[in-house]
Amino acid sequence: MPNISTRGGQMPASPIRKLVPFAEQAKERGTNVIHLNIGQPDIFTPQVALDAVRNLTDKVIEYSHSAGNETYRKKLAKYYQSIGIDVDFTDILITTGGSEAITFAFLSCLNPGDEVIIPEPFYANYNGFAITSGVKIIPVTSTIENDFALPPIKDLEALITPKTKGIVICNPNNPTGYLYSDSELEELRELVLKHDLFFFSDEVYREFCYDEHKHKSVLHLKGLEENAVMFDSVSKRFSECGVRIGALVSKNKELISAALKFGQARLSPPGLGQIVGEASLDTPEQYFIDVYEEYIQRRNYLVEELNKIPGVKCPEPKGAFYTMVQLPVKDTEDFCKWILSEFDYEGNTVMMAPGTGFYSTPGHGSNEVRIAYVLEQKELEKAIQVLRKALEVYPGSIL
Amino acid sequence: MPNISTRGGQMPASPIRKLVPFAEQAKERGTNVIHLNIGQPDIFTPQVALDAVRNLTDKVIEYSHSAGNETYRKKLAKYYQSIGIDVDFTDILITTGGSEAITFAFLSCLNPGDEVIIPEPFYANYNGFAITSGVKIIPVTSTIENDFALPPIKDLEALITPKTKGIVICNPNNPTGYLYSDSELEELRELVLKHDLFFFSDEVYREFCYDEHKHKSVLHLKGLEENAVMFDSVSKRFSECGVRIGALVSKNKELISAALKFGQARLSPPGLGQIVGEASLDTPEQYFIDVYEEYIQRRNYLVEELNKIPGVKCPEPKGAFYTMVQLPVKDTEDFCKWILSEFDYEGNTVMMAPGTGFYSTPGHGSNEVRIAYVLEQKELEKAIQVLRKALEVYPGSIL
Repeated sequence: MPNISTRGGQMPASPIRKLVPFAEQAKERGTNVIHLNIGQPDIFTPQVALDAVRNLTDKVIEYSHSAGNETYRKKLAKYYQSIGIDVDFTDILITTGGSEAITFAFLSCLNPGDEVIIPEPFYANYNGFAITSGVKIIPVTSTIENDFALPPIKDLEALITPKTKGIVICNPNNPTGYLYSDSELEELRELVLKHDLFFFSDEVYREFCYDEHKHKSVLHLKGLEENAVMFDSVSKRFSECGVRIGALVSKNKELISAALKFGQARLSPPGLGQIVGEASLDTPEQYFIDVYEEYIQRRNYLVEELNKIPGVKCPEPKGAFYTMVQLPVKDTEDFCKWILSEFDYEGNTVMMAPGTGFYSTPGHGSNEVRIAYVLEQKELEKAIQVLRKALEVYPGSIL
Repeated sequence: MPNISTRGGQMPASPIRKLVPFAEQAKERGTNVIHLNIGQPDIFTPQVALDAVRNLTDKVIEYSHSAGNETYRKKLAKYYQSIGIDVDFTDILITTGGSEAITFAFLSCLNPGDEVIIPEPFYANYNGFAITSGVKIIPVTSTIENDFALPPIKDLEALITPKTKGIVICNPNNPTGYLYSDSELEELRELVLKHDLFFFSDEVYREFCYDEHKHKSVLHLKGLEENAVMFDSVSKRFSECGVRIGALVSKNKELISAALKFGQARLSPPGLGQIVGEASLDTPEQYFIDVYEEYIQRRNYLVEELNKIPGVKCPEPKGAFYTMVQLPVKDTEDFCKWILSEFDYEGNTVMMAPGTGFYSTPGHGSNEVRIAYVLEQKELEKAIQVLRKALEVYPGSIL
């Protein structure tokens, strides 16, 4: 029997996946599981997007251009221009979800063994893309005490070695909901220029910025034309995660040209998804206003109620729809298993993502969970009740 | 300005892409370009598949399971069982096209620096997947004199080193149309068992076997449960290349489990494509009969007419819808450029894929082209005329 690869064995199971059997147990015993663990919004996909696919007239579903349909790229470029990002359609590669944008960028920019610095906690799947491309993630820790702001720039600079080729941020951030400030972005801009690094920015939550904060893209920063690489996706913006359409955007022509070759090898991004993505750009403004109202209401409710629970600490996220929450327990992985397998309140329990999965540094995040507020307030109310009651009786509570 | 990666620079441009500017020139001067270069069939997608997406009732296009929708996997398993392949749905990972199945298999089974032996000429994009996964392709040459049959098994065995981890075949073959015989598959079976190798088989053209030849899958071979890895796709079978749905199929549980982790990192395969793929399994038998009749007629016409042209040699392909053709020229890349940029006959010219792009060994295939017979006979007739006339006047003709 031939051995599978080392990297195959090294691929981390998602922190959530480990909990799946426990969630199934809960369901088997008749307990309703409220999913605070996932980023699948309950918001409807825009009607204009659904209609586009229902009105399909093609007789043959053909390959598209490897960089994505030109009509779509041109329309997407117009959207970026409308928010002050100066790109044209040749700076855009349509990808199979934001995931493929990240993979193509790593494969195109970085060699095996190269290092990228990422503030932790970070989106756990970056680990998978790093293993795929043989790249090493060097974490720099942001802390809940500091609302998960960018760590001091000197801490990042201290980690730079000859192998460092880039810095990756997610802005607004998954899992913390943190929105980077103009001055933090300026510090990062100076750092990448000084050390000639790529500046990768995952901006799939761009539309979800709260409290009158305005999103600033890496592509808004001056003098970074060759360094700035932006990842985008239709998944969250239009609540159409399943179509798997994203984009890799950069003014660096050499990079787009290399990434396109990886794109040509896989022929084309999903055709039906591109139809949906293109039509979604005609979504009426009211849709986003409604979505914004919904999310800010959910966030305000959730953060306020979480902070009322004894021993629970939750910074106020300024963007995305996640928050990292500190719980009065030693090990949230144990707590998340326990609450699924042994606890319910009025027939409900909750599934949350244990914090350690979002950190590279061993042991970090062991008293944190990520909570997604993608459910309607009625569900969030039940979830808060479950959590409060559970912490009162959890044997491992350290209140 | 940060440098892009070595592998980004190494990614080969597709042999066809180099010709695109020449094809555009031809179109600009008013010449009709007949595309013999691509594998995009003109056959209609089954109605049942198009209807499925037109009848979409979802309000939210959500992520699917990372391994693909269970209903789809179960139905696909039934199809495999119906053709004597003993798998269940847990042996199947739905992927983003056959391309992702190959990438996941290489990432899961092979370490960077590992070697796979592949008979050349081979599908050019294997080079891209090898670069992505850091794997080295070791070619073993099959020849047009021998109808591109499997080279003697001792030639393959002579290439095995401690780094060899697998053998890859494409059956029926793109680009040659060759269909491996039972005895060749048996020889390969013994070889992989003897040396404890993976046996990767790309079977996306399974339904396209001619002259009463029957397709044998790697998963039909006995005793290879841990070694056999099959790549599949809906693209050619149902003429729906654009949906980007494929499958990785293996009885090796450790492999499927590792591949699933790569699948989890990219969240899910395309959702709308899965709906199309699942519905396609209900395609009436008559569709395949019609498609078969169409292709065999095209093949018979094409092969007969090509062999009538002085100096042209074309083996009779037993499967897929490609054929590798020897032309009486020194360098088909030059010829393909010339015919696009300087020649037309009755307003038509042809685009073909130069042979060298399908070989790893430098210089091999320089007098060959790959021709796809995915166009209706009327178009093929025009193409044959163009080719005959062109070879009569081509300055580099070596007749």
